[in-house]
Amino acid sequence: MSFTSVDFLEIDALLSEEELLSRKSVRDFVEAEINPLIAECYEEGKFPDHLIPQLGELGVLGANLPEEYGCAGLNNVAYGLIMQELEACDSGIRSFASVQGALCMYPIYAFGNEEQRRKYLKEMAAGRLIGCFGLTEPNFGSNPADMLTKADRVTGGFILNGAKAWITNGSIADVAIVWAKLDGEIRGFLVDKDTRGFSTRLTKHKLSLRASITSELLFEDCLIPEENLLEKSNGLKSPLMCLTQARYGIAWGALGAAMSCYDTALRYSQQRVQFGRPIGGFQLTQEKLVKMVTGISKAQLLCLHLGRKKDTGNLKPVQVSMAKMNNVAMALEVARTSRSILGANGITGEYPIMRHMANLESVYTYEGTHEIHTLIIGQSITGQSAFG
Amino acid sequence: MSFTSVDFLEIDALLSEEELLSRKSVRDFVEAEINPLIAECYEEGKFPDHLIPQLGELGVLGANLPEEYGCAGLNNVAYGLIMQELEACDSGIRSFASVQGALCMYPIYAFGNEEQRRKYLKEMAAGRLIGCFGLTEPNFGSNPADMLTKADRVTGGFILNGAKAWITNGSIADVAIVWAKLDGEIRGFLVDKDTRGFSTRLTKHKLSLRASITSELLFEDCLIPEENLLEKSNGLKSPLMCLTQARYGIAWGALGAAMSCYDTALRYSQQRVQFGRPIGGFQLTQEKLVKMVTGISKAQLLCLHLGRKKDTGNLKPVQVSMAKMNNVAMALEVARTSRSILGANGITGEYPIMRHMANLESVYTYEGTHEIHTLIIGQSITGQSAFG
Amino acid sequence: MSFTSVDFLEIDALLSEEELLSRKSVRDFVEAEINPLIAECYEEGKFPDHLIPQLGELGVLGANLPEEYGCAGLNNVAYGLIMQELEACDSGIRSFASVQGALCMYPIYAFGNEEQRRKYLKEMAAGRLIGCFGLTEPNFGSNPADMLTKADRVTGGFILNGAKAWITNGSIADVAIVWAKLDGEIRGFLVDKDTRGFSTRLTKHKLSLRASITSELLFEDCLIPEENLLEKSNGLKSPLMCLTQARYGIAWGALGAAMSCYDTALRYSQQRVQFGRPIGGFQLTQEKLVKMVTGISKAQLLCLHLGRKKDTGNLKPVQVSMAKMNNVAMALEVARTSRSILGANGITGEYPIMRHMANLESVYTYEGTHEIHTLIIGQSITGQSAFG
Amino acid sequence: MSFTSVDFLEIDALLSEEELLSRKSVRDFVEAEINPLIAECYEEGKFPDHLIPQLGELGVLGANLPEEYGCAGLNNVAYGLIMQELEACDSGIRSFASVQGALCMYPIYAFGNEEQRRKYLKEMAAGRLIGCFGLTEPNFGSNPADMLTKADRVTGGFILNGAKAWITNGSIADVAIVWAKLDGEIRGFLVDKDTRGFSTRLTKHKLSLRASITSELLFEDCLIPEENLLEKSNGLKSPLMCLTQARYGIAWGALGAAMSCYDTALRYSQQRVQFGRPIGGFQLTQEKLVKMVTGISKAQLLCLHLGRKKDTGNLKPVQVSMAKMNNVAMALEVARTSRSILGANGITGEYPIMRHMANLESVYTYEGTHEIHTLIIGQSITGQSAFG
Repeated sequence: MSFTSVDFLEIDALLSEEELLSRKSVRDFVEAEINPLIAECYEEGKFPDHLIPQLGELGVLGANLPEEYGCAGLNNVAYGLIMQELEACDSGIRSFASVQGALCMYPIYAFGNEEQRRKYLKEMAAGRLIGCFGLTEPNFGSNPADMLTKADRVTGGFILNGAKAWITNGSIADVAIVWAKLDGEIRGFLVDKDTRGFSTRLTKHKLSLRASITSELLFEDCLIPEENLLEKSNGLKSPLMCLTQARYGIAWGALGAAMSCYDTALRYSQQRVQFGRPIGGFQLTQEKLVKMVTGISKAQLLCLHLGRKKDTGNLKPVQVSMAKMNNVAMALEVARTSRSILGANGITGEYPIMRHMANLESVYTYEGTHEIHTLIIGQSITGQSAFG
Repeated sequence: MSFTSVDFLEIDALLSEEELLSRKSVRDFVEAEINPLIAECYEEGKFPDHLIPQLGELGVLGANLPEEYGCAGLNNVAYGLIMQELEACDSGIRSFASVQGALCMYPIYAFGNEEQRRKYLKEMAAGRLIGCFGLTEPNFGSNPADMLTKADRVTGGFILNGAKAWITNGSIADVAIVWAKLDGEIRGFLVDKDTRGFSTRLTKHKLSLRASITSELLFEDCLIPEENLLEKSNGLKSPLMCLTQARYGIAWGALGAAMSCYDTALRYSQQRVQFGRPIGGFQLTQEKLVKMVTGISKAQLLCLHLGRKKDTGNLKPVQVSMAKMNNVAMALEVARTSRSILGANGITGEYPIMRHMANLESVYTYEGTHEIHTLIIGQSITGQSAFG
Repeated sequence: MSFTSVDFLEIDALLSEEELLSRKSVRDFVEAEINPLIAECYEEGKFPDHLIPQLGELGVLGANLPEEYGCAGLNNVAYGLIMQELEACDSGIRSFASVQGALCMYPIYAFGNEEQRRKYLKEMAAGRLIGCFGLTEPNFGSNPADMLTKADRVTGGFILNGAKAWITNGSIADVAIVWAKLDGEIRGFLVDKDTRGFSTRLTKHKLSLRASITSELLFEDCLIPEENLLEKSNGLKSPLMCLTQARYGIAWGALGAAMSCYDTALRYSQQRVQFGRPIGGFQLTQEKLVKMVTGISKAQLLCLHLGRKKDTGNLKPVQVSMAKMNNVAMALEVARTSRSILGANGITGEYPIMRHMANLESVYTYEGTHEIHTLIIGQSITGQSAFG
Repeated sequence: MSFTSVDFLEIDALLSEEELLSRKSVRDFVEAEINPLIAECYEEGKFPDHLIPQLGELGVLGANLPEEYGCAGLNNVAYGLIMQELEACDSGIRSFASVQGALCMYPIYAFGNEEQRRKYLKEMAAGRLIGCFGLTEPNFGSNPADMLTKADRVTGGFILNGAKAWITNGSIADVAIVWAKLDGEIRGFLVDKDTRGFSTRLTKHKLSLRASITSELLFEDCLIPEENLLEKSNGLKSPLMCLTQARYGIAWGALGAAMSCYDTALRYSQQRVQFGRPIGGFQLTQEKLVKMVTGISKAQLLCLHLGRKKDTGNLKPVQVSMAKMNNVAMALEVARTSRSILGANGITGEYPIMRHMANLESVYTYEGTHEIHTLIIGQSITGQSAFG
């Protein structure tokens, strides 16, 4: 039976035709092409990379970037709904799209020169060229400012040394956006996969995001040509701007994962009979379902509000922090609760819930952990930093 | 220092001039007239009834009812913001206004005939005539359908017998809207305070809503004239419609109580120094404040969404249940957390927090307990009743 | 109907005859003498000080101190059970006993010389002489090390200056144990109520612990005779040792408050009928009751374990921190949950729940806030201080 | 680095030499033999069945049954500690031992005749003969009373028909203890794996307990010889008695899983540096660790208390329900919290946490779901059944 998004508050009435259409086209694609194979991909630990060109064709890669660069040029609500639908399938699928669009295409668009935009964006939008985003290092997750990766100027370019960890798409990327310190300032570099001295190492034994590729990136005296510097990048705030884009998409994506779990649990509760009635008719089950639908409904309002603000250029990064923090925590809670409703059936890959639950552990941590977002918001409201 | 409502998500930008003005005028009145005396009222257990005419003049009584009946004719968002401001002061003040407007004026408007509307609404809007709403009975709270209060037809009217409990405004009301079974069907009656056989008894020893009047209503062979029947009332759904009106206002009101607590705690955390820095600079305090501001922000979006729907006639009672349930639980949580931030100072009447916390216990229970709303929503989403 | 302590785990079987007898005698006294008037005391904001001599006669004051000083010489489990019974009545009553015994008699016993012990302990055990404990200052709650109160040596004694806040028993105490810096080191002083320059100010408008006296202590050039120094006190660790004694009693006391609330809610749930059956027969109510009884049962095991360790001299302060932190938070949760089970009835003084709930807010904060105990334990397990 | 069990409350001092020794011998075995391969087993979905004979030799199978039947004859605390150590490794390993000992050897001991005891127990204790326990059916989990599996008397025995689901050890068992209705009453039968008409089907695609075998059991006209009836079994209470044995072990086992997660997170927090200090030095991390150690410590007291009661024959099933419910929920919470402390590292099989977290989802559900135990306890304390 097909996935139904939650609309307890009748929020669909606030969506435009185009927004509804974007959601529908992605949902249809997901149901037809990805859902049938995602459980197996997850169990076997492989990413369905054969679908990338179709995702490109569908327009989901960098969907909120301008049409002049081959992108769909959708508004941010449509973009968000696309993320929701992808993650209703699997966080790994949405992660692929987030990395490609928000963490790679966006910085090329925002910090690259026109030549770089022309060279990369159209190919990336089409899914013919894959990117990854190298910011996190093995020992620097929550505080990237202390990164060790370093670029030194040489004739004709830069020599890059260092290592990045937990990089989605790393081993399949054609180009890596790598953040490194140049003269003490963090700058972005486009690193071609064939660069001598650049290697990747697959991160194995994951018990989360198994249908997604995670890698380490290693740079040993890599020569990066001058034209591969993202010229307008300057300082930590540049990668943080990318993270804000990605977090915005995650806030919507988490909604999708939550809806998928809730939808599954609700239907199960209506069909599973114990003690002579559907378990959805027991108070303890209703309490769980009601907490879930309430959490989802509030997260929907939050996403829509942020989307409308983003479209008018009024969205603040700290507001995105709230949405990322809140929605992922909500989704994780929903996944856990849904799991309990399904009883023993909840632990198999026959239902998407355990997979979502495991995936959301990564989502909770990446792109700013729950705790880091707490402290970002805390600093904003109190005027006091509590990081250190 | 004056109360500041929370606007982390910049929701004010979505409010109209009129809405902002309604909020401001009530806030100014509250700060000037009620805040200075509310702590004492609470401690001494008295309702500041001398302010009722001013509340009438300000237009807060039945503010969303039509101007042709002497009411302010505001939209439901402006009305909600008024409830928010009143409860930012004290739940007892907002309760007075809710009872007067949503539980008394509304049913007269909705179920009364034109004569009844003319007779009561203008006087009630002006605060010259006070109402109370008699539905709950000592032994029937969550299931009013089983009420014992009964009306029997006699020549020229009805004989009313029974008792109602936990009735806000009871002892100061000029007229009581009383729900009773007539020929087995629940109907509404306007009972004048001077009716022979009608008496009230003040509910004493309250440790919540102390700045509000709560009473029992007792009816012994009261003769109610024919013209005091609310003709269009028919069945339990009539008082439930009133409750939906009131719950809508409570959802907004709870926001006000929460904002007052959060605002107090935030300021305190910025000023109170321990271990050499403002406690707002500690991670544990920030975590608390961030949870609070997140909860408040989501509740604001929920209220606004419901208000806009209500104005277009698209609001469903079950959606109001979600808002009442969610927002009051959120406010209670915010009050409790705020209390802990203030340490020992948090337990005195010098700060509004303990008062709000105690008040919200009543709000959590009245107009449909948290649990009843859970089961209302649960029934709606599962299609199964779990009440019985 | 009389209070029944919880014994889901049949822990009574592990108690000695003497322990059971101590519990019974205090319970009987509480039921006969304090319960009938506690609600009124609370509502009117007065401490029932006429009962102090009877508490003395009963042996509850400093009950775990040696008989040779006129004390009951009970073991620490019996002592704990006494605290439980007193707080099952009201946290204010238990607070009186904690201050008298753990915070005043104990330091005189532990840090005083033989003369001081002889002079004070017997009188205090009998309730003829009342003490208070002055450590907290208006601006120094969680970090008493930074206290400003100061003693300077003069001929024949010391000159004391400073102020203490939130002092239980302050205005009725005959002697105050005051902690002040002497040559930069914190020392304890016995300050007679009649000392010139010493005054107290009642803390009014409390909405918690209303049946308890709270005061500020003010010292202006008070001359304290040499013999009033607690000689063996040296440094912050001396008052902290007192706090450990008091916290131990609080851990037991919180159990009493929790049991009283649970007991009340359980009985109510068995008698209150809605929708045709006792509300105790609904899943949502059972879930609440089960969480409560589970929390209480675990806290009981914790108390008993600590009591046995204390009796053998093996109890560590950080273990007491865990019990104080856990049990008070548990009791607060139980009080709040119980309140919701009683619906509207839960807000009146007819039932003890609202009173316990409000009281426990103070208990949560005093003698080391929940957060401070978290950080004490955190430091112990990680080896890292996170206070500053 | 080797696993350290938590002993914040110095509970080890209450354990006997034998108990400590039992714990140590199992811990040593687990560290040497199972820990090195468990992550791979889990990832590949296989149970390390080659270790069964060694588990037998170690004496862990049916360890609390009498020596005269070849069992270790340990007391129930030693038995519990063994379960703790096995589950500190993996819930699947402990599940194997629980099924073998509590669900198979116990009923043979309790409901079997002397011949059956002689025939099976020694072999099972040695791990040479493996059992499984067939109670749950595809459509009857929480209410086994409604089971459809049925035995009909025929000459020389019984004809068994039906199906069982979620059966640990199913596909590797030599003998199945099968519960079926005979003349309307539930009875236990020993079903040999070679019985004609008996087949098993491996449950695939599990995302929890992957290092454990789960199967369906199918019975089509199986002829069960007369002597394979467990004669003393009579009614549902017989399998429930088995469940009580198993739940007792689960309560201890969950402790082990929790300790492993906490131990991992604590060490990680002491070594992982961010923002210039070990993350264990941050308030938010300490709060998490403190909640965990508090939860574990209380669960330890609960287990020990129950063990001592079990040894004296005073343990009630409802008390075991509390321990199973509480400890598994605690362990799940600890696993989830630990996971967040490890950040990205928390999602890999390099650390045991994600595995424990996923496993505990099954443990939460099996042997009486959390909700069922809530209602069992709820019925016990209120006297009202809320199941139906």
